[in-house]
Amino acid sequence: MKKDDAVSLSVIKRLPKYFRYLTSIADKGIVRVSSKELSSITGLTASQIRQDLNHYGCFGQQGYGYNVKELINELSKILGIDRKYKLILIGYGNIGHALFNYEGFSQSGYTFEAIFDSNPEKIGKEIDGIKIFDVNDLENYLSDNEIDIAVLSIPKEDAQKVANVLCKSNIDGIWNFAPEDLKTTNGVVLENVHLDESLYTLTYFINNPQDYVFGNE
Amino acid sequence: MKKDDAVSLSVIKRLPKYFRYLTSIADKGIVRVSSKELSSITGLTASQIRQDLNHYGCFGQQGYGYNVKELINELSKILGIDRKYKLILIGYGNIGHALFNYEGFSQSGYTFEAIFDSNPEKIGKEIDGIKIFDVNDLENYLSDNEIDIAVLSIPKEDAQKVANVLCKSNIDGIWNFAPEDLKTTNGVVLENVHLDESLYTLTYFINNPQDYVFGNE
Repeated sequence: MKKDDAVSLSVIKRLPKYFRYLTSIADKGIVRVSSKELSSITGLTASQIRQDLNHYGCFGQQGYGYNVKELINELSKILGIDRKYKLILIGYGNIGHALFNYEGFSQSGYTFEAIFDSNPEKIGKEIDGIKIFDVNDLENYLSDNEIDIAVLSIPKEDAQKVANVLCKSNIDGIWNFAPEDLKTTNGVVLENVHLDESLYTLTYFINNPQDYVFGNE
Repeated sequence: MKKDDAVSLSVIKRLPKYFRYLTSIADKGIVRVSSKELSSITGLTASQIRQDLNHYGCFGQQGYGYNVKELINELSKILGIDRKYKLILIGYGNIGHALFNYEGFSQSGYTFEAIFDSNPEKIGKEIDGIKIFDVNDLENYLSDNEIDIAVLSIPKEDAQKVANVLCKSNIDGIWNFAPEDLKTTNGVVLENVHLDESLYTLTYFINNPQDYVFGNE
């Protein structure tokens, strides 16, 4: 159950956006920003932005606005991206391969500790020093190793079975790319990237342009 | 501006989910389903589901529910996935490579007509019969070829510049994987897959489990 004092999902979903906007203006050397300026970049109202940030005690100063670096630091802590995470990749196919090689992750403190796959031709190989294990050894591996996040990029048919193994382990979260709605237990947090849904949303708007509102997501 | 009779984004975002649920139960041989049953799978209320589908004239029958195949056909039309799309891929890096090779797309009527990249080592090569062009030739290519969707998987620094070229062409939509908030004009529909935001949402919930509500997205 959602607690009364829990922050709503719509607020939470805006935080990574603020973080991205702020890091992009910090890269341009901007040191302070008003909620009004943030509003013109993000398309959200200034009062919405102030409210969102106030939830977390990030108060701007009247007449000054926000110090960009400080706000980035605060948001890093809130989003939990000021710490490091140990990841495993399950499914070294197309998408798995792309995620494993995505430089942005390792730069941001996300490191892959192991890969799992069911393909005998892949099992036992090493990619950049990281070993590909048999997915059947997942349970054993997780009882011996402290892992934070499992990245799931396997066919939908196998996804729930693997998720069940993950939920019995000590991992904290699953980042799921399988086009399947998984159930998790034991407090394991699930975040989905459903590429098919995203593509269908695009084609919906192409075919129903009257419903399209720019920047609305 | 959003018109008064426009369907809200939250309804639209649920349609691909319904489509996925229905195709998965159709695969299991289920021929009819009540809104109550759909509710137990999706976690949405039965009346919410009926309301969403009524927007599009998909009415279930009292005491029978929905015919699964018919509803899938209706949703295919609504989502625009009953037709074929010509795609170009811009950026043949990690993610671009994965998307190009994703079998699900070609099976569903999405076909890549050309690839564009800025890397001289890639330009001129052919991947499965599809040529990699210089991204500088994009404008010319689009004036000679009818393309529906551009898939953008390039560094964020170049994304808006390429989006501007796309918006001057006849394409209908951009499926953007660059971690950048693009602006589009000329009625070009934009749909983003922001992997960084998704990962930050996951780490937020890992660090703020009190805010996590299962299935809430």
